Amino acid sequence: MRIPGDAIPFIRAGIPCLGPAEIPSPLPSAHLDADIDANRVLLSPYLSNWRENAEEPLSYELAGPRNKLFFDPSTVRAAIVTCGGLCPGINDVIRSLVITLHDLYGAREVYGIRYGFRGLVEGHDLSPMHLDPLAIEPISNEGGSFLGSSRDRQNPRETVDFLQKRGIDILFVIGGDGTQKSALEIAKEAESRGYPLSVVGLPKTIDNDIGLVEKTFGFDTAVSIATEVLRGAHVEARGGPNGLFIVKLMGRQSGFLATHAAIASGDVNFVLVPEIPFDLEGEAGLFSLVRKRIELRGHALLAVAEGVAEKIENIGGDNRVGWDVGDYLALRFTEYFRSQPAPARVRYIDPSYIVRSVPANSVDSIFCQNLAHHAVHAAMSGRTRMLVATCNRVYCHIPLDAVVLEKRFVDPEGLLWRSALETTGQPACMVNP
Amino acid sequence: MRIPGDAIPFIRAGIPCLGPAEIPSPLPSAHLDADIDANRVLLSPYLSNWRENAEEPLSYELAGPRNKLFFDPSTVRAAIVTCGGLCPGINDVIRSLVITLHDLYGAREVYGIRYGFRGLVEGHDLSPMHLDPLAIEPISNEGGSFLGSSRDRQNPRETVDFLQKRGIDILFVIGGDGTQKSALEIAKEAESRGYPLSVVGLPKTIDNDIGLVEKTFGFDTAVSIATEVLRGAHVEARGGPNGLFIVKLMGRQSGFLATHAAIASGDVNFVLVPEIPFDLEGEAGLFSLVRKRIELRGHALLAVAEGVAEKIENIGGDNRVGWDVGDYLALRFTEYFRSQPAPARVRYIDPSYIVRSVPANSVDSIFCQNLAHHAVHAAMSGRTRMLVATCNRVYCHIPLDAVVLEKRFVDPEGLLWRSALETTGQPACMVNP
Amino acid sequence: MRIPGDAIPFIRAGIPCLGPAEIPSPLPSAHLDADIDANRVLLSPYLSNWRENAEEPLSYELAGPRNKLFFDPSTVRAAIVTCGGLCPGINDVIRSLVITLHDLYGAREVYGIRYGFRGLVEGHDLSPMHLDPLAIEPISNEGGSFLGSSRDRQNPRETVDFLQKRGIDILFVIGGDGTQKSALEIAKEAESRGYPLSVVGLPKTIDNDIGLVEKTFGFDTAVSIATEVLRGAHVEARGGPNGLFIVKLMGRQSGFLATHAAIASGDVNFVLVPEIPFDLEGEAGLFSLVRKRIELRGHALLAVAEGVAEKIENIGGDNRVGWDVGDYLALRFTEYFRSQPAPARVRYIDPSYIVRSVPANSVDSIFCQNLAHHAVHAAMSGRTRMLVATCNRVYCHIPLDAVVLEKRFVDPEGLLWRSALETTGQPACMVNP
Amino acid sequence: MRIPGDAIPFIRAGIPCLGPAEIPSPLPSAHLDADIDANRVLLSPYLSNWRENAEEPLSYELAGPRNKLFFDPSTVRAAIVTCGGLCPGINDVIRSLVITLHDLYGAREVYGIRYGFRGLVEGHDLSPMHLDPLAIEPISNEGGSFLGSSRDRQNPRETVDFLQKRGIDILFVIGGDGTQKSALEIAKEAESRGYPLSVVGLPKTIDNDIGLVEKTFGFDTAVSIATEVLRGAHVEARGGPNGLFIVKLMGRQSGFLATHAAIASGDVNFVLVPEIPFDLEGEAGLFSLVRKRIELRGHALLAVAEGVAEKIENIGGDNRVGWDVGDYLALRFTEYFRSQPAPARVRYIDPSYIVRSVPANSVDSIFCQNLAHHAVHAAMSGRTRMLVATCNRVYCHIPLDAVVLEKRFVDPEGLLWRSALETTGQPACMVNP
Repeated sequence: MRIPGDAIPFIRAGIPCLGPAEIPSPLPSAHLDADIDANRVLLSPYLSNWRENAEEPLSYELAGPRNKLFFDPSTVRAAIVTCGGLCPGINDVIRSLVITLHDLYGAREVYGIRYGFRGLVEGHDLSPMHLDPLAIEPISNEGGSFLGSSRDRQNPRETVDFLQKRGIDILFVIGGDGTQKSALEIAKEAESRGYPLSVVGLPKTIDNDIGLVEKTFGFDTAVSIATEVLRGAHVEARGGPNGLFIVKLMGRQSGFLATHAAIASGDVNFVLVPEIPFDLEGEAGLFSLVRKRIELRGHALLAVAEGVAEKIENIGGDNRVGWDVGDYLALRFTEYFRSQPAPARVRYIDPSYIVRSVPANSVDSIFCQNLAHHAVHAAMSGRTRMLVATCNRVYCHIPLDAVVLEKRFVDPEGLLWRSALETTGQPACMVNP
Repeated sequence: MRIPGDAIPFIRAGIPCLGPAEIPSPLPSAHLDADIDANRVLLSPYLSNWRENAEEPLSYELAGPRNKLFFDPSTVRAAIVTCGGLCPGINDVIRSLVITLHDLYGAREVYGIRYGFRGLVEGHDLSPMHLDPLAIEPISNEGGSFLGSSRDRQNPRETVDFLQKRGIDILFVIGGDGTQKSALEIAKEAESRGYPLSVVGLPKTIDNDIGLVEKTFGFDTAVSIATEVLRGAHVEARGGPNGLFIVKLMGRQSGFLATHAAIASGDVNFVLVPEIPFDLEGEAGLFSLVRKRIELRGHALLAVAEGVAEKIENIGGDNRVGWDVGDYLALRFTEYFRSQPAPARVRYIDPSYIVRSVPANSVDSIFCQNLAHHAVHAAMSGRTRMLVATCNRVYCHIPLDAVVLEKRFVDPEGLLWRSALETTGQPACMVNP
Repeated sequence: MRIPGDAIPFIRAGIPCLGPAEIPSPLPSAHLDADIDANRVLLSPYLSNWRENAEEPLSYELAGPRNKLFFDPSTVRAAIVTCGGLCPGINDVIRSLVITLHDLYGAREVYGIRYGFRGLVEGHDLSPMHLDPLAIEPISNEGGSFLGSSRDRQNPRETVDFLQKRGIDILFVIGGDGTQKSALEIAKEAESRGYPLSVVGLPKTIDNDIGLVEKTFGFDTAVSIATEVLRGAHVEARGGPNGLFIVKLMGRQSGFLATHAAIASGDVNFVLVPEIPFDLEGEAGLFSLVRKRIELRGHALLAVAEGVAEKIENIGGDNRVGWDVGDYLALRFTEYFRSQPAPARVRYIDPSYIVRSVPANSVDSIFCQNLAHHAVHAAMSGRTRMLVATCNRVYCHIPLDAVVLEKRFVDPEGLLWRSALETTGQPACMVNP
Repeated sequence: MRIPGDAIPFIRAGIPCLGPAEIPSPLPSAHLDADIDANRVLLSPYLSNWRENAEEPLSYELAGPRNKLFFDPSTVRAAIVTCGGLCPGINDVIRSLVITLHDLYGAREVYGIRYGFRGLVEGHDLSPMHLDPLAIEPISNEGGSFLGSSRDRQNPRETVDFLQKRGIDILFVIGGDGTQKSALEIAKEAESRGYPLSVVGLPKTIDNDIGLVEKTFGFDTAVSIATEVLRGAHVEARGGPNGLFIVKLMGRQSGFLATHAAIASGDVNFVLVPEIPFDLEGEAGLFSLVRKRIELRGHALLAVAEGVAEKIENIGGDNRVGWDVGDYLALRFTEYFRSQPAPARVRYIDPSYIVRSVPANSVDSIFCQNLAHHAVHAAMSGRTRMLVATCNRVYCHIPLDAVVLEKRFVDPEGLLWRSALETTGQPACMVNP
């Protein structure tokens, strides 16, 4: 994974703390590891990295419960907010945050913020909900967000006013790239006031493109649903003469979902992602390649990441279709095949909401619970301006300042894209010379 | 179910036979019922019908194996064609036709026609596939059509030329309303030539609207997938502020799928079908009702049958969106809410291909097998111009001449629609006075 | 379906009413059908039945809302009890009873009885739960019974004491054969006291064997899960040399579930049900037939209904295995193959709880809602000693006195068993001459 | 992960090669990385490991295609064998091995061995199947093993005779711990004969306990199915009074599956694994803890790994139940509760075959494809005595000699077990003082 150069000072500086942790943890000793702070996880698991670093290599603090806490569990007030689009596993995270705070630490003041940052400013008539294990029991097997989400952004000053007025000590922020930027602003605003607010992020985005985060929760589930949709599209393409089916998958700037689903399905012939340039026309272009494939086999299946729209020149020329790459491609292919001897049945499927709204599968469910456990442990110890994630499969704390600098992209030279080329059989280069 | 007046003579006339059935059936006697032709199934299971019919009431011939066959199983040639859009269970029907012909009757000449009626005329380079149990083994758990389907219509004369040239004795036609009309024309054309061709239909359409047919295969599976899509849409609608989600479901002239899925989901607030008129504007209209619902509960879910498009006045005024009722409603709602104090997040989901391409569930799988068994039994006995279906859950033979007269519609006074009203809570009348 | 001779007087007598229905229904007129009592549904949809009945044939009263009620909706008190083993759809029925009573009739006093009849006598500290739409919201997508169930039987006098003390007007009884017998005793006990209690049954049993009831709710879902288990067993049988897999399915006296699942799976080679005798040993017996199948194809799959245990002679000879037909067959087959040249890998799968605990699929969900709607309509009109069910797909009222006389069985001459023979390929007779 | 001391020399020695790789790879240059051998992956991603290693730390060779091959793709002969119990994903691995060999390298001689090692010796009449992309097309979405598997062990000399006689160059061995031991013996036997056979293992076991391997394929899928079974068991336990449900999950020596599924389900109250000792009786023992839980909440759910049987003292005292820990626990709990004031409904579920026979989910499907790609790349380059796996999520080559030394176990001090304690709420110590 690429480490932006300006992230390095933040990574070396480590996670900020609100103050000394002096309150003994109520956790049983079997749950605690006294030496946890004596070890760290390396950013890179490669030997080349070892050899190149004369001095100490980059590493993150390990996640896990600490012996001493900054906040008193009997009085601490925590709030949970979910922002951005839906994603499988949000409810698992909410539920596990509540249960860990309540059952493990004995915290009684846990609040759920309604509809994202909109519920963190005055004037929307959206009071925070008091949460306890009973209140959240029904949500375990459901998709969506129990609290409601929104894409609203708010003034960090108003948000901190809101939190401070209600005596909130900890804010858990479940969201993607943009949301974590807002979380960082909130943390800075609180800091500037001397208000000891712990802000801890949990990485949620179906695009799986948060900087420095190797996997966001819900992504595995999304891949499995997207794979089912691709299977159906393949059945349809094959089910009649010259079927060309186009499936749009989420990914505004990164094509992780489209690429993973294309590999898993095994039926996709072409996968288009924002990271890899391609031409539509010409000998090396998509139209010609798809036509040849249909002539050869009678059908074709395309998976396209939504963010490809911005990469296609002139796609905005026609206002109506400009906003949707699937509509655009379906139109252009229909036109293209009109001039060909054999026409194609061009169809477009946009499963977006179907992929986002399902409950988390069991792997994601375990992942969500672990992220939530560790977010609570970190916050109770007084850490802030951080995000909980895994690095080389080890749970750790990543500074928010480093996370928000740059998104993560599919590496055209990496294993993932190479697997996609091997599975789809599409040429590595689809650009005319 | 409504019985069209002009269907009655055909029903009373019974199923045409190609000639006397004189060849003993190879089936074991445990499979045979010597008295099968002594009984029939009533079209109406109601006592009122009993009382009103002084003379004998309307009834259908029972399906099932006969003691004597018209065709010699050792030499009979059968062909299978699948037409129209995909639908869960097509492969189960194909597989079961082949296995019944092959294993039960010992027939060895079974052919699969490629891509619907297109494969039944010369000049497309689509040779029929020879089918036996080994060839069709892999298709059992797959969606789609192993043979390929198409919506093509062909000249019945050319089709009969094609069949006659290849010595086909039986044609199994898997398809909907329009397909069965073509099947009837083929049967008539063969008859006019004195060519003893048995044409037997199997009722396939995801709209479930074939005349006189109480249920088409694949419909239950389609309802279950549509219900899952509605569940996801509900999760999304509820997952953010003022969510209004519109889900379009199949049904060009009849709203069976939308109505069943709306009842099964329990989350739909309004279901729109072509059979029930409604206004968009005005106090009793949809816009106002949806707005009130959102004000009250914060979200709303609409299921709309595609055929509603033709019922909305002026929907064709704008060429671009005219063809899709979901796009149209999403646009109109967005405009409507623009002028309201609280805006709504309007989203539109079109799961069409996802609903059609899945494999049949177990109930449909049993149904498909029974239809196929009975279609083979009927054809081997020399029956023709008929369709296999159930009536009051009893498998029977229905004359194609009666089937094609009129589609089936949701009865606004019937139990199905009343259940939909009770489950959704939508008013019985959404038309302004 | 067989109609027991002693059921006929009860069927002709019709459904008892607690008294004149004089209170106008609060339902909107679009939901009401003034002529509902002018029509009835025939028990038999066959023409032969028509011809044989000089006088009027047997028929049931139609289900549906009535214009006039016996109970005042504003004061009526209803209780719901779920008895016996779990079954998919119980929660859908509970939820729909509550919503229909509450939202359609405006009833406010609805109670849920805990853990079956155990919760209907004093002394168990199991107070009835007050139910309203909010209380039952989370249960829609969950398997099991929200109220808890049990197999307890209780003295009907104590039960009626309990109900009378709490002023209950309506008791909805969700359960199978034995439960409906108890429901009938409760109704009789109340009647003998002059206590106007409406007792309305809803047919629940995964065995699908309630007398006169063509389908119990949850059965379709159970078939689909059982079919998945059979698919897995087939994969395992085929996955190694000479695999013989035995899957036990529910059905203490009737083999409906095993038979339906065997047909739906298409992979089962032998299905054993209590209704059809078979030998284990000898030329025509199971051992020999299974051995030949394995020699031919390398694997075999058996589905066996649990009730077969009672049909196997001497199965009780060994106390340990006597209670489980699957253990017994696995043991006997292992012994048998020990003396054969080629051994078999004999494995036994008992998926019982897995089949019972899943949520209802969408077809069952619609069915559950309709049963619940009609149960409420019937009870509010003052009807009692009845069960809601379908007959020839028409919802109707069946007298409890007729229901409890005899269980329903798989007909060895009927279509279902013939389909099973055609699909499995097993011989019609597996008894030595 | 624990690294056995005697594995270190093998890890440092690296992967043996059959000879110099001098044939240019036919892969397009976009798929190749010229510097692949200049880098390696670290066994431990922890900083502590870094600090402790004055000299170079332990690392594995990276997986991936090499520029030069040892075998000539146009003549190479490869065989694939699947051993041991079924596991989700076997067919994905077979399919991907065949497609990679055939489509990427142009190899035409690929054979599938029937029924495990049994098919690798003479005398069983099990000829290897010729495999090409067409032959394996139907297996993509199916569970099980297309080739058949068995638990047979064979004399390595006979196996090498068999392979040598047929001129096999590469043997891909899909299996667990024991299977990989046999693979190593085969490799050694070939080496001793100077027969250049490449033996490459792929790590398959549903127990996820292969030494040095962080995850075996199919494990994620197995966890998700096991989680569904636990959900059903929870529904059943809660569905009646005092339900105690015991679910046995696979894991003969390691409790990974039981532990993961318990965490994912969130409903398990006690999870028993071979790695963690516990008492049945006494104040700290299981019986007492379960009783208290049932008194408090009315139901309890236990997940138990099958290998726990060997840890329970005297479990073999009674021959009949000794072999199954689930039967044993159910019996003992039934006895225990007989002497308690409130009895419990004790039920036992053994879903074994259901968990193993399903198709791989999409995450596993991608994993299987990557393992297969890398196994082919490694074998073609002439590497042998190795296994393909991931280490810190990086695909790499692990020496078979190191893999077979020791199984992998759940670490009682590690994150996984701590998560299990947090999720279940069971005490860290269940042993009486």
